[in-house]
Amino acid sequence: MFTYEMPTKLYFGKGCVAQSVADMAALGKKALIVTGRSSAKRNGSQDAVVAVLESAGLGWVLFDEVEANPSVEIVRNGAELGRKEQVDFVIGIGGGSPMDAAKVIALLCTNDLDDEILFTGPYGAPPLPIVTVPTTSGTGSEVTKISILTNHKAGTKQGVKSPMLYPKLSLADPSFTMGVPEHVTIDTAIDALSHAIEGYMAKDATPVSDVWAEEALRFFGLHLTQLRGTLSYAVREDLMYASTLAGIVISQAGTTLVHGMGYCLTYYKGFSHGRANGLLLPQYMKLMEESMADKAQRVWELLGFAGSDDFEAFMKDLMPDTVTLSEEEIEKFTTMVMKTASVKATSYDVTAGVVARIYAHISK
Amino acid sequence: MFTYEMPTKLYFGKGCVAQSVADMAALGKKALIVTGRSSAKRNGSQDAVVAVLESAGLGWVLFDEVEANPSVEIVRNGAELGRKEQVDFVIGIGGGSPMDAAKVIALLCTNDLDDEILFTGPYGAPPLPIVTVPTTSGTGSEVTKISILTNHKAGTKQGVKSPMLYPKLSLADPSFTMGVPEHVTIDTAIDALSHAIEGYMAKDATPVSDVWAEEALRFFGLHLTQLRGTLSYAVREDLMYASTLAGIVISQAGTTLVHGMGYCLTYYKGFSHGRANGLLLPQYMKLMEESMADKAQRVWELLGFAGSDDFEAFMKDLMPDTVTLSEEEIEKFTTMVMKTASVKATSYDVTAGVVARIYAHISK
Repeated sequence: MFTYEMPTKLYFGKGCVAQSVADMAALGKKALIVTGRSSAKRNGSQDAVVAVLESAGLGWVLFDEVEANPSVEIVRNGAELGRKEQVDFVIGIGGGSPMDAAKVIALLCTNDLDDEILFTGPYGAPPLPIVTVPTTSGTGSEVTKISILTNHKAGTKQGVKSPMLYPKLSLADPSFTMGVPEHVTIDTAIDALSHAIEGYMAKDATPVSDVWAEEALRFFGLHLTQLRGTLSYAVREDLMYASTLAGIVISQAGTTLVHGMGYCLTYYKGFSHGRANGLLLPQYMKLMEESMADKAQRVWELLGFAGSDDFEAFMKDLMPDTVTLSEEEIEKFTTMVMKTASVKATSYDVTAGVVARIYAHISK
Repeated sequence: MFTYEMPTKLYFGKGCVAQSVADMAALGKKALIVTGRSSAKRNGSQDAVVAVLESAGLGWVLFDEVEANPSVEIVRNGAELGRKEQVDFVIGIGGGSPMDAAKVIALLCTNDLDDEILFTGPYGAPPLPIVTVPTTSGTGSEVTKISILTNHKAGTKQGVKSPMLYPKLSLADPSFTMGVPEHVTIDTAIDALSHAIEGYMAKDATPVSDVWAEEALRFFGLHLTQLRGTLSYAVREDLMYASTLAGIVISQAGTTLVHGMGYCLTYYKGFSHGRANGLLLPQYMKLMEESMADKAQRVWELLGFAGSDDFEAFMKDLMPDTVTLSEEEIEKFTTMVMKTASVKATSYDVTAGVVARIYAHISK
């Protein structure tokens, strides 16, 4: 028995934002646009969204204060603006941070939730309708029911998760990623690769999520060696396609140990999300070669690697960053990771010893 | 630029109806169950649905008068019952006929529509929420936004089509197909095969619908030679999986000339929908071998045929039915087909001559 749920209507391709007039108009009269401070203004995405809203005769107000790894405090500010302006729907434009912020802002516009209930639910009312416009190819948040926020009270990143958070509409135009700098292109691609691999290997993988995962891995196999320098539109399009598919994968199958362990590297060591996952993926695949040999082999075929050692060498070249973890850090992170759902989601008997060994392996 | 839309939440597998308690409860207090006269009572599907409704504490009322190729009149009767009983949602259990009837009944419960507007829209209010429980592996209606009704005023089958008709929930348990008789198994499998092939070849095919189409064709390739006699649960499961995927395909890409030409054979010559499509598919693939050679070749690889002649010989053995069409009938049907959207949806320069030639070819 499995379920498949992907209620978001997806527009994909160059110029797709302008095609969404009727869908936008169906969501209400006034939108809250949620972005970071600058990139949505530079890459053309904000202008494209404003143009389609205005051609649909809709009003809008801008909240452009979302930082990377957005905090609960920031989304509360966004929701306050949305309520004050009585918006009907919320549009998140950007990478994972503004899209994730938009989801929780939409939820807080219709629900009074204290910090604890925010992360656990239940939620009384459905959020305002959510629209996502990705401007990086990584997070997959444009098609997921999850929002990852930084919870300073808990001392890590945590997920707000509910089928109510599925965007109504996602407008994925690869043009907006043309100017993404190299290190962000690499970071986000490896995040998306991690989604495809982890979802494919997860205990909750389904026949349907596996189809998407293999399709995403096929596209990563075409382009993993081409992430440096100036990328053509065709490559940018394939990367966004693959990262969106990988988002559908994790919405069905969830993420696993790589994400669970990576959040500590981001929160405490300042590693970007993609680099954190990239450091961990090769060792994770070593576990999978033991416990899921057939699927691991299929990953190598689709990506074009001989095995986890070959992949580790490639990743070290692509992401030469190193991290140094003290014994105390390893112990602290391991204790935190063992409390997360990512342990049980992993197709391996994950013990504290396994987690500590991987942290030690990546530490220089 | 392409779009992907499949908002239906799908449960798939043995016993899945019983897992849907919370989703059912979210749809309201009272359901209208729409079925044919007998099969839903025999194959266990109606009991399973009633059990889950009762365990969710919901009321229900039964409309079991849906005939094959349901007429506008029948769905009006169903809607009258639904309004009188003030139901909150509609559950269609069966093959395509009860599921298609349920969709339009749900629409007519919330909209007063004369026969013309019914087929064209626009529709003012959204329909009552729709749930589908397929008991054959063919139509794909469980996941589509289309309802095909017999319109006696127009003298053919016609589609009611709107994104509002997507079911909220579909519960696909292959167990319910275990007792399906051989001729229906074959009919419905060939209908679903036709969806996968036509959607794959359609002008409106998308990268996403092609992924589903190839996956469905792969499963048909495994089982097309095993449709006779007693089928195991494993084969029944694969057939339902493939037919559901093929339903997702046509919801994105639409059907084409095979369906357009087949409706005349059903309406005027009494051929079942699957047999009508089966008669036409080999000749349709001859056109595709000309205009879409690469994709046609991929179809043969996935299905395990050498080409359209090989496929035609297989289909003649599987469905030995013949049809005799007079010159007048060929002319009349051709004129009707040329007015349908199926002509423009086909990746071939379809002229009246092409249509007439195919009808003449299949006529004995």
